[in-house]
Amino acid sequence: MTRAMTETNPGTPQENTPDSGPSRRGLLFGGAGAAVGAAAGFAAASIPGNAKAVEPQGLLYGGHTVAFHGRRQPGIITDAPAFVSFLGLDLEMDSADGKAAQRDLMRRILGIISKDAARLMAGRGILADTDPEMAENPARLTLTVGLGPGAVRIINKSLVPAWLKELPAFPIDKLEEAWGQSDVVVQFCGDDKISLLHARRSIQKDLRTLAKTVWIQDGFRHSRGSMAEGATMRNLFGQLDGSGNPRDAMAERAVWGGENLEPWVEGGTSLVLRRIEMDLDTWDSVDRPARDFSMGRRQDNGAPLTGHHEFDTPDLRVRDDSGFPMISADSHVARGQAREADEHILRRGYNYLEGEKAGLLFASYQCDVQRQFLPIQERMAERDMLNEWTTPVGSAVYAILPGCARGSFLGQELFAA
Amino acid sequence: MTRAMTETNPGTPQENTPDSGPSRRGLLFGGAGAAVGAAAGFAAASIPGNAKAVEPQGLLYGGHTVAFHGRRQPGIITDAPAFVSFLGLDLEMDSADGKAAQRDLMRRILGIISKDAARLMAGRGILADTDPEMAENPARLTLTVGLGPGAVRIINKSLVPAWLKELPAFPIDKLEEAWGQSDVVVQFCGDDKISLLHARRSIQKDLRTLAKTVWIQDGFRHSRGSMAEGATMRNLFGQLDGSGNPRDAMAERAVWGGENLEPWVEGGTSLVLRRIEMDLDTWDSVDRPARDFSMGRRQDNGAPLTGHHEFDTPDLRVRDDSGFPMISADSHVARGQAREADEHILRRGYNYLEGEKAGLLFASYQCDVQRQFLPIQERMAERDMLNEWTTPVGSAVYAILPGCARGSFLGQELFAA
Ligand code: HEM
Ligand code: HEM
Repeated sequence: MTRAMTETNPGTPQENTPDSGPSRRGLLFGGAGAAVGAAAGFAAASIPGNAKAVEPQGLLYGGHTVAFHGRRQPGIITDAPAFVSFLGLDLEMDSADGKAAQRDLMRRILGIISKDAARLMAGRGILADTDPEMAENPARLTLTVGLGPGAVRIINKSLVPAWLKELPAFPIDKLEEAWGQSDVVVQFCGDDKISLLHARRSIQKDLRTLAKTVWIQDGFRHSRGSMAEGATMRNLFGQLDGSGNPRDAMAERAVWGGENLEPWVEGGTSLVLRRIEMDLDTWDSVDRPARDFSMGRRQDNGAPLTGHHEFDTPDLRVRDDSGFPMISADSHVARGQAREADEHILRRGYNYLEGEKAGLLFASYQCDVQRQFLPIQERMAERDMLNEWTTPVGSAVYAILPGCARGSFLGQELFAA
Repeated sequence: MTRAMTETNPGTPQENTPDSGPSRRGLLFGGAGAAVGAAAGFAAASIPGNAKAVEPQGLLYGGHTVAFHGRRQPGIITDAPAFVSFLGLDLEMDSADGKAAQRDLMRRILGIISKDAARLMAGRGILADTDPEMAENPARLTLTVGLGPGAVRIINKSLVPAWLKELPAFPIDKLEEAWGQSDVVVQFCGDDKISLLHARRSIQKDLRTLAKTVWIQDGFRHSRGSMAEGATMRNLFGQLDGSGNPRDAMAERAVWGGENLEPWVEGGTSLVLRRIEMDLDTWDSVDRPARDFSMGRRQDNGAPLTGHHEFDTPDLRVRDDSGFPMISADSHVARGQAREADEHILRRGYNYLEGEKAGLLFASYQCDVQRQFLPIQERMAERDMLNEWTTPVGSAVYAILPGCARGSFLGQELFAA
């Protein structure tokens, strides 16, 4: 596997490899972003790490770009922008198609997505784009590709990780077929809905004869600029959602590996996508103390019931005057807390509201679904006061491919292996 | 009718009336906005006119507020923010209800909306709000209320303007019942989807026993900060949409009256809301020259085919070397151009994309639907190359109430009249 890439996606610590100097690469990517921004008349800036972007012209961030090429895919450990669209695709395949034909199909799909993603994320339309103007404000657009079990099997049976399969059925689930496992998922994230939707449509069009759309799941957070950069989002229950996420080195490890944790393939990770309906009407009738009790945190400032500030660590041992734990053992936070050292996941969810249906596109990233995600989900399915108001209606698991270098495509190494 | 208010909504020229000093009011509203912003830790600023807001902390605009109270309603001539949600409501009424009961119902509905709107637009939750935190980033939130024919009739039969009725049927229409006329419309606009949706839900909850939701129509433009403030949006055909809108004094006159144009009631105007599907797939197959020809403008920079820049005035008389008009008489722009001095409308549309359905929430404001809007719509229904790719599927007309002063409610004067 090539290590010839430097991760230049924001939010990921710079990891330089022997054969690639960071300065030249930085220049390359920064240059591309700047050129686009300038062409479109924007205050262009490739966002370096998580640093606050300098805004020479006030509010403008349309020209902000994230690098597509890198050892890992973007859109995972990068700060989550305002919008997401998950595009579920199934291969256009005949059962009569031989193995070679199927492999070729996968290769073509990944080749096209990789080419298109590099252009779109840099603010350029795809080749023969009928509307390149709509690509001009990428606003941190990222495309991230994941594969379902069937798709990895087609490429290389021996690489299918043990955890890459549908989750076991949980008693809390009311899964709808419409939101099930697909062969491929493309996650689009960005701060501008017009360029994001244009990117999605571009991919759909370019894959027209190769893959069919099985679902689209759109979500949102607060707009970029309506809150401080990196502020925790509120979900539709009004809660700060994401406070307890692992950060920095711990997030790194949970998603990309280290110590006892190995990703399925270097630079790869996994995505669990659960569509979870939230019953806003019944939640409305719950008073604040009861809400906070069921969560283990305060809705107003997100602080754990044993602390004062959002990022205080919940302490399950602290008891109140009557001897009861301040954070109930059946609260969502207590059920979610790690029991084993490696039981951490990076949650990067988005709200959805469509007609009468509201909820969370729960998305979590981790090296190993089995070891990191499943124990948490099992505990919550068994007992969690929040279940009263939430219902999983969709579920899918994907292997996230490693990133790719310029001139190659996502997953290329897996074909060689 | 009271004239005791000063319009302090951004985008509207300051019109001071004899009995109200602008400074005190400015202070009042600016102060409210600032307090909210400060409480939530934001860079607060009431946006003065269309001036570029000064952003002391970079990207933050969550605390930006628009004043609710004023001689006219906000959300009309103010720059259009990133999101819209139109909420169509029908009165919860029994046919047995007498006139007095119906009037009382209307009064209560308008009273509740007025109280709630003032709070929500200032960044505060409604009374007994279960999630006031979700109101904290109003981000230019505006609520604007319009009434269908039945609702005005209930308040005061003699005030129903001649144009307040459903539009005549056009041969291009394929109207769906789901998007028809409602008794009341509340238009929510804002730059943050979370506070906007919270506001909508707050109104729905507070009117629960008084009115039922008949439809919700959500739309979007580019995000605030992804383009320069006031930049023209692109619709889903990739076109700059809004370039030919009247500006400044002309927009003022078209919407609020002057010379030969009289609004139906002082400080009021009208809204035509058309839901128009756009066939992205067939549009994709049209090449750029043909697209530009059918529009009469260039897609890339929005310039009329007889000009160079977006805001050049289209000149229908200019001919090419072969003697043909550069802007075809059947182009959308030619059909839309005013034939009479007063035939101007202010378009303030939003994109929508739901599943496979894409289109424009076409919203236009004008004093008089009959004189200003209808002739344009009739010409376009008769002949317009753009019709090949567009289909009206929803249609409704509303009387927009005048604004209200602090301590009174929208439409209050109409009850007295
Ligand atoms: C609609 C469904 C859900 C909602 C509304 C929700 C909401 C929240 C909220 C408000 C918090 C506290 C703040 C934070 O740390 O982010 C939280 C924490 C957490 N949630 Fe969820 N959650 C949902 C589903 C899930 C699911 C499906 C999982 C995993 C199977 C999960 C795992 C966690 C974890 C691990 C924590 C952190 C616990 C800690 O260590 O403090 N959540 N969730
Ligand atoms: C999906 C439907 C529609 C699309 C995509 C569309 C798009 C456009 C575009 C791109 C322009 C040129 C730029 C501009 O001035 O904004 C324009 C102009 C205009 N449109 Fe539309 N439009 C639609 C429907 C309508 C409808 C229903 C009306 C009124 C009945 C209308 C009235 C106008 C007017 C008055 C102009 C300005 C013409 C001028 O004086 O230059 N449009 N439209």
